[in-house]
Amino acid sequence: MNAPQVVLDGVARPAAEARVSPFDRGFLYGDGVFETMRAESGRVLRLDRHLLRLRAGMAALRIDACPAAEPAALAAAASLLLDANGLGGRTAAVKVVVTRGEARGLGFPQSPHPTVLVTAEPWEAPARACAPGWRLHAVTALAPAPIARQKALAYLRMLAARQEALDAGADEALVLDARGKVVETAAGCLLVLTRRGWVRPVHPLQLPGITVAAAAEILRARGLPVAEREMGARELGRCRAAWITSALSLVVPVASVAGRALPSTEAGLAAEVRAALLSPAG
Amino acid sequence: MNAPQVVLDGVARPAAEARVSPFDRGFLYGDGVFETMRAESGRVLRLDRHLLRLRAGMAALRIDACPAAEPAALAAAASLLLDANGLGGRTAAVKVVVTRGEARGLGFPQSPHPTVLVTAEPWEAPARACAPGWRLHAVTALAPAPIARQKALAYLRMLAARQEALDAGADEALVLDARGKVVETAAGCLLVLTRRGWVRPVHPLQLPGITVAAAAEILRARGLPVAEREMGARELGRCRAAWITSALSLVVPVASVAGRALPSTEAGLAAEVRAALLSPAG
Repeated sequence: MNAPQVVLDGVARPAAEARVSPFDRGFLYGDGVFETMRAESGRVLRLDRHLLRLRAGMAALRIDACPAAEPAALAAAASLLLDANGLGGRTAAVKVVVTRGEARGLGFPQSPHPTVLVTAEPWEAPARACAPGWRLHAVTALAPAPIARQKALAYLRMLAARQEALDAGADEALVLDARGKVVETAAGCLLVLTRRGWVRPVHPLQLPGITVAAAAEILRARGLPVAEREMGARELGRCRAAWITSALSLVVPVASVAGRALPSTEAGLAAEVRAALLSPAG
Repeated sequence: MNAPQVVLDGVARPAAEARVSPFDRGFLYGDGVFETMRAESGRVLRLDRHLLRLRAGMAALRIDACPAAEPAALAAAASLLLDANGLGGRTAAVKVVVTRGEARGLGFPQSPHPTVLVTAEPWEAPARACAPGWRLHAVTALAPAPIARQKALAYLRMLAARQEALDAGADEALVLDARGKVVETAAGCLLVLTRRGWVRPVHPLQLPGITVAAAAEILRARGLPVAEREMGARELGRCRAAWITSALSLVVPVASVAGRALPSTEAGLAAEVRAALLSPAG
């Protein structure tokens, strides 16, 4: 097999040779957006919705459109890489990064040459992701509104939240606002089974999740209503079951919240939703 | 003159040829810290204190120490660049960036090869910085604690705050917490002259400012006490004068807060403090 490739600014090249300028604002400030997607047998799941969110993030940060960041170019780059990197027959992680490129000054200066990077690599489910599920550790953390609703490259707050969870012997961080309301997890969204049925907790400072929206649709299509409303950490801790959704892991059951085991993981239903999320119609 | 140089991982090379890996966590996540310093005639102001803060930031993010990030190596790199880039006789901006380097996974994975970048470039004071001073626009924004107290590479929240201020016709963002308490500005700290004397507003989610600490010492040495306490946005708006301090601009008077002009800029005293901050003893 040849050396792994990446596509940088529209050009495929060996990953080991791909380099960005140290004056790139992605490197200097986290001034950019990204998407992480799952590919199965050469097909990127929910590609269109991820690219729509990427485009919305670029608009919010006023990053200029450019040919290499057009949806068709990104889709072609992903296809090329899945093939070139020998990932056509397995599960892979496809990542797209768009930064403002090189420009001086704080704020969002105009910069005519965004940097566009596409990568595709083999991916394997992390430990405990299917069973017995992840242990959630509550972390109070909130990003300012202009950042929170974009998948911004300035992701250190989420790395810190995850690390705090790992230090506490848990698997993932449950991100709460200062009032104890559920925002999201460090790398996913939540679906919660309460006594009154399924709830997708929503919060004004939440990243609009693509996989959670698809999973909720799948539950609804099975006749299970999914309410969308604010939820406090205390209610989450008392729920019957909870799942973490994300583009790569799809559905990860929550084993415990703040050290307290949940009564169920709804493992059977989780497996069904995972399968539906993998299907071309999912 | 030769092409401008940078020092990357301890090696000087032309800036145009310096490149970082697109898998560097600085680029992918803003997973690193930085310092921006002012140099005058080849001498970096308050270099030791900036490098101490950098070291503290690396420790907080658990980024391994490495030879290129040792204070002596960074000082030598700055000297070399000020000379090589023909900046010995003028004002320059020296920047140090240390990222975790390449590693997979969220959290703070161990990574034995941090990336260390040092740059030195000509610097000129921005418009209105000496007079008539900057117009402040209030922005409610707060970073989670593990990030807020480090000069973290994930700086997009401050770019967004500055841009919001620029969009409002102001020069800089006054960053407030959700209760309206003063945190800092997008790129500086504050010193405020109230009816009862000078105040340095402090806040638990504030970056520990190096220039503000030096400026407060200079005021105290002149017999002007400087109180350190929490301050609300309303009190700041009613103050007699206020200054923004930063490593590059040193002291920038505030012309107005949220559209309301302040009675004074304390221009004479500001000039004295600026001069003292430029002196080798400052």
